[in-house]
Amino acid sequence: MKLKRSLITGMLFALTATWATAHAIEPAPNGIAFPEGYQDWRVISVSHRTDNHTMRVILGNDIAIAASRNNQTLPWPDGTILGKVVWKEKAEQSWPTAIAPDKFVHAEFMVKDSKKWAKQDGWGYARWVGEELKPFGENTDFAQQCIACHTPVKNNDWVFTTPAKLAFPE
Amino acid sequence: MKLKRSLITGMLFALTATWATAHAIEPAPNGIAFPEGYQDWRVISVSHRTDNHTMRVILGNDIAIAASRNNQTLPWPDGTILGKVVWKEKAEQSWPTAIAPDKFVHAEFMVKDSKKWAKQDGWGYARWVGEELKPFGENTDFAQQCIACHTPVKNNDWVFTTPAKLAFPE
Repeated sequence: MKLKRSLITGMLFALTATWATAHAIEPAPNGIAFPEGYQDWRVISVSHRTDNHTMRVILGNDIAIAASRNNQTLPWPDGTILGKVVWKEKAEQSWPTAIAPDKFVHAEFMVKDSKKWAKQDGWGYARWVGEELKPFGENTDFAQQCIACHTPVKNNDWVFTTPAKLAFPE
Repeated sequence: MKLKRSLITGMLFALTATWATAHAIEPAPNGIAFPEGYQDWRVISVSHRTDNHTMRVILGNDIAIAASRNNQTLPWPDGTILGKVVWKEKAEQSWPTAIAPDKFVHAEFMVKDSKKWAKQDGWGYARWVGEELKPFGENTDFAQQCIACHTPVKNNDWVFTTPAKLAFPE
């Protein structure tokens, strides 16, 4: 009987652990939830930061993609989410002058909600670090780091990215 | 009457021209059709070729994405289409050590069909150049250039790209 109970407890524990691994991504300290499914978003641009040796792809949710393709990004509309996926850089083994992604560093997001984030010119910021996607920041002050870094592009609605031209029939 | 006929002819001509601009992307010389909708495909990786100063995003159709996420890329399955979008590089104005896309150069594709392209180890190649998406190559020999360049990765199923890790809950 004791064995049976241990077995059931063990199984429940295993199930819970599996579920936790699969689903428990903590929200950012400012309450922004992890944008599940960001890996399926469409591309807005790419970049290579030669100063900190990272490669990036910039993705957008459907609202961001529509705005981007219609040149309606000054300002980006409410509901926009921009995602930036960052990897360490690595030379491609078979073409060493080509720089490609190595280890995943973090995924970071800008969420446009002109009412909710009115004090931040409409943008909420969030970042999840490492493959375990640990929220960045100890408390809500973390966003001040994002804002400080984005200040040079204040007049571009706080966004560094210029949508890259993806040629296609209209 | 003559004026009316000219007017109608003119309108028909204008309509035809508009339609042609919007739809007539010629197939590659080897018959591969332009993969309409590639701009909505999901990301596999990015790269920066420092030798020819271009930035790239590597996209995949649904079959390619499934293969990529399940580590089933040796070989890539039949039905895979890999797309590489290439832009000239440009330093970001507000962060000059960040290199980003400038002008669109071309979009190029590898299409896996182990029967149709048996003589090329299963891959058909195609490229469309410039924003007008003009097919690359004068005749079917053009693919020899693609194959020559891809020979260093013959043992990687002829593909340079290693799928970048996009961290997300399974």
